[in-house]
Amino acid sequence: MTLPDLGPFPGAPGYDKAAFLDESDPLSHHRDRYVHADPDLIYLDGNSLGSLPVDTVKAVEGTIHYEWGDRLIRSWNDGWWDLQLRLGDKLAPLLGAQPGEVILSDSTSVNLYKLALAAVEAYPQARDRIVTDDLNFPSDVYVLGSVARQTGRTLEIVESDGINGPVEKLTNVIDRRTALVSLSHTTFQSGYTYDLAEVTRLAHEAGAMVLWDCSHSVGAVPIDFGGADVDLAVGCTYKYLNGGPGSPAFLYVRAELQDQLANPIAGWWSHAEPFALDLEYRPTSGIRRFHTGTMPIISLSAIEAGIDDVLDASIHAIREKSIALTEYLIEECERSLQPLGFEIVSPKDRNRRGSHVSVRHREAWPINLALIKDAKVIPDFRAPDTIRLGLSPLYTGFVDVHTAVQRAVEVVKARVHDQYAGVVTTVT
Amino acid sequence: MTLPDLGPFPGAPGYDKAAFLDESDPLSHHRDRYVHADPDLIYLDGNSLGSLPVDTVKAVEGTIHYEWGDRLIRSWNDGWWDLQLRLGDKLAPLLGAQPGEVILSDSTSVNLYKLALAAVEAYPQARDRIVTDDLNFPSDVYVLGSVARQTGRTLEIVESDGINGPVEKLTNVIDRRTALVSLSHTTFQSGYTYDLAEVTRLAHEAGAMVLWDCSHSVGAVPIDFGGADVDLAVGCTYKYLNGGPGSPAFLYVRAELQDQLANPIAGWWSHAEPFALDLEYRPTSGIRRFHTGTMPIISLSAIEAGIDDVLDASIHAIREKSIALTEYLIEECERSLQPLGFEIVSPKDRNRRGSHVSVRHREAWPINLALIKDAKVIPDFRAPDTIRLGLSPLYTGFVDVHTAVQRAVEVVKARVHDQYAGVVTTVT
Repeated sequence: MTLPDLGPFPGAPGYDKAAFLDESDPLSHHRDRYVHADPDLIYLDGNSLGSLPVDTVKAVEGTIHYEWGDRLIRSWNDGWWDLQLRLGDKLAPLLGAQPGEVILSDSTSVNLYKLALAAVEAYPQARDRIVTDDLNFPSDVYVLGSVARQTGRTLEIVESDGINGPVEKLTNVIDRRTALVSLSHTTFQSGYTYDLAEVTRLAHEAGAMVLWDCSHSVGAVPIDFGGADVDLAVGCTYKYLNGGPGSPAFLYVRAELQDQLANPIAGWWSHAEPFALDLEYRPTSGIRRFHTGTMPIISLSAIEAGIDDVLDASIHAIREKSIALTEYLIEECERSLQPLGFEIVSPKDRNRRGSHVSVRHREAWPINLALIKDAKVIPDFRAPDTIRLGLSPLYTGFVDVHTAVQRAVEVVKARVHDQYAGVVTTVT
Repeated sequence: MTLPDLGPFPGAPGYDKAAFLDESDPLSHHRDRYVHADPDLIYLDGNSLGSLPVDTVKAVEGTIHYEWGDRLIRSWNDGWWDLQLRLGDKLAPLLGAQPGEVILSDSTSVNLYKLALAAVEAYPQARDRIVTDDLNFPSDVYVLGSVARQTGRTLEIVESDGINGPVEKLTNVIDRRTALVSLSHTTFQSGYTYDLAEVTRLAHEAGAMVLWDCSHSVGAVPIDFGGADVDLAVGCTYKYLNGGPGSPAFLYVRAELQDQLANPIAGWWSHAEPFALDLEYRPTSGIRRFHTGTMPIISLSAIEAGIDDVLDASIHAIREKSIALTEYLIEECERSLQPLGFEIVSPKDRNRRGSHVSVRHREAWPINLALIKDAKVIPDFRAPDTIRLGLSPLYTGFVDVHTAVQRAVEVVKARVHDQYAGVVTTVT
C-alpha cells in the first residue's frame, strides 16, 4: 500500500517556514545536479549512501569506454596510477589538509587498521593503551581491537551518555600510557560532533597520537586538520561526498609524520621504485608510503564529480544550510513527532551536531519499514530502536523535511507500520 | 610514426599455420564478446589488464543508473550485501573450490596480508619461518615481509634460476620450522607454473600451511584447490578474468580452516551480526569471517560478465588454446626473433607454463615503446630487459600472434626503437 496523500502539506503547521527557507536557499540549484529517479521519493539516507551526481554517469562511462575499452593498459600511464593522489589533493581543502597529505585507498576499515597499527608501533611498549569511546562506529572498535591484540596493547572504550561525546572522561583517561586516541569526528548514531582541536590537544598533551574517522562529517562539516594539528584520519567518500556505493575511502597523514611511520601492509604501491620489481622493500617518501595495492579504478573514477560539487557549493555554505535543516527538522519533530512517542536522541547544540538527526521510538523498526515501503521516505534504521534522518544539504530542501515529517505522522497515526511488526530483513 | 605495413603478413613463414589454427579454433566466436576499439591493435597484455567484455558495459550501467541512482540504499538489501559472496561462488568452479570458500574482497595485497597473518598466528612461535621464492611478485614478498616482521618470524626467499620454480630447493627448505609457504601459482615474470598439489603436499608434510597467489593463472590455467588440498589463496580478477582495472581480488579459505583462523582486520562485515552494532567483536562462521569493510560495488559489478564468459568457454578449452597459442608464439619467436637478439625466458615445458611468454632483449625498453607507439602491438615491459607477451585465449587469435611477431621484426630491423633509447615513463 502507499499513503493516499504524499504531500506536500501546505495546510500543516511549519509549511510556510519551509517554503520560505527553500526560496532563500542559495544552494537550491544544486539539487538538479543529482539524479532523482522518483520525484515523490524523499531520500534522508545520504548519511549512509549519497545520491548519484549527474556528472558521475558521464565520468564512469568515460572510464569504461575510453580508458578501459579503448586505451586499455595505457591508461595506467595516462592518469590511473596517480588518480588516488589527484583525488586526494582535490579532497584536501575539505579536510584542511595540504596537497600530498591525502590519498584515496582501500576501505575505511582497512585504512583505519593501517594507520592505527602504524601509530601504535611508533611508540614503546610502555604506551600500552588505545583509547576510543562507545559512540564510535562498532567496526572501528573491532579494528582498533585487532590492532590492540596484535601489538599487545589494551583498548579502552570510554562510556558516554549515549548521545554526547564523553569529553570530560576522555580528559581523565588519556595519559602517559596512551599511544593512540581514535574517535569518530561525527558519531554515526547520535550525530554528536567532537571538537577536533580540543581532543587532538588532549592527546598531544599526553604525548599520544590522534586518529579521526570523519566518515560522517566529511562533505557536511568543515574540517581543519591543519589548524587542529591532527595526526591521522580516515573516512568514507560515499556519504556526503556522494562517491558511490563502497567507493574507496580517504586516508590522511600529517606531512611531518609521513616518513616517520611504517605502512604495516607494505605493498608495491608504497615502494620507492614500484616498477624496479626489487625483492627488497624500500618505502617511498610521502603519502604514497601508505598505499598498498592496485585500486578499483572504476569505483575511484565515480568519486570526483561528488567532490567537485561540494567544492563548488563551498563547505561553509553547506554547513550553514545543514544547521538550518537540522534545526528545522528538530522543530518539526518536537511539534509533530514527540506527541507520537518519538524522542530526539541527537545533540541539541547545533555546534556539536552533524548533518543527521536521530529519533528513537519503541516501534522504530516497523515504522522505518513503513516509511520506506508505503510513504516514499527513506531514512535508515539503527538497532535497536533508532531512526536516522540524514539531511544532505546539496539535494535536500526544507519542504522535503516538512513533507517527510508529515508522512511519518500519517504512517504512525494510521498504524500503517503494524503490517511490519514481525518482519525481519538483513540490512538497513 | 606508424609502421607502413601493419599486416597481416600472408607471405611470411608461419602464416598458413596460424590461419589454419584460427579456422579450427572452437573459441574464436568469443572474440566478439570483447570491445575492440581499434581493429588494428593487437593487445598482448591481457595478463596485466584484461579487455572490456561487451556485457560489462550493460552491467555497470545497471549498477549506476538503476541500483545506485534509482534504488539507492535499498540496493544493499537487493543484492549488494551478498554480491562478493555470490561472485565468489560463481568463481569457485574455476578454482576447484566449493560454494562458501571464496569471496571477492579488497586488493590482492590486502587479502594476502590478511590470510598470511591469520595463518602464521595459528602456529606457535617456534614455527618461525615463512617461505617464498624469488619468482614471486615483489609486492607479495613485501607483504610477506610485513607479516614476518609483525609476528617475529623470518622470511626465507628461495633462489631460482630466474625462470623455473626452485622445487628441489623448496623441498629442502620447508621443514618443521616453517609456518607458511606462499608462492605465485603462475609467476609474473617467466610464467613458470607450479604444480599446486606437489608444493602443497610438501608444505603439509612439514605441518605448514600453503597460500597461493593465482593472479596470473586464474581464468587461464585450470586450478583445483580441492584436489590439491590447498589451504589459502588469493588472486586478481582483472587479468584473464577481465574484471576491469583494479577490480577487487578473490580470497579463498578451505572450508575446514575457516573457523580456526582469525581475520586480522576484523571489520564489521566479518561480524556474526553486523547490524546488531554491538561493541563486542564476535566473528561470524564461514568465509564471511574474512571480510573487512564495505566493498567498491561499481568495480565489483564489473567483474561478473568476465567470469561468465570464462565459464561459458570452459577453462579446459581455454587452457588447450592457451597452450597452442604459447607453443605457436615460441615457434615464431625462435624462427623470427631469436636471430634479432631476443631470448625466450619462459619454460619450454608446456605443463609448467602459464599463458604468457617472456622474451629478453638488450634493448627491450625502447623496443617495447616502439611496439606500442608505432606498431600497434601492446605487450608489457618488466624491468630490466623483459617483454611479456600475454595471450588471452578468449580474444587473441593465432594470426594476431603471427602479425605481432612480424611487426616486431619490422620494428627491430628498421631500428624504429632508436627514437626511444633515452625515454623514461613511470608505468608501462
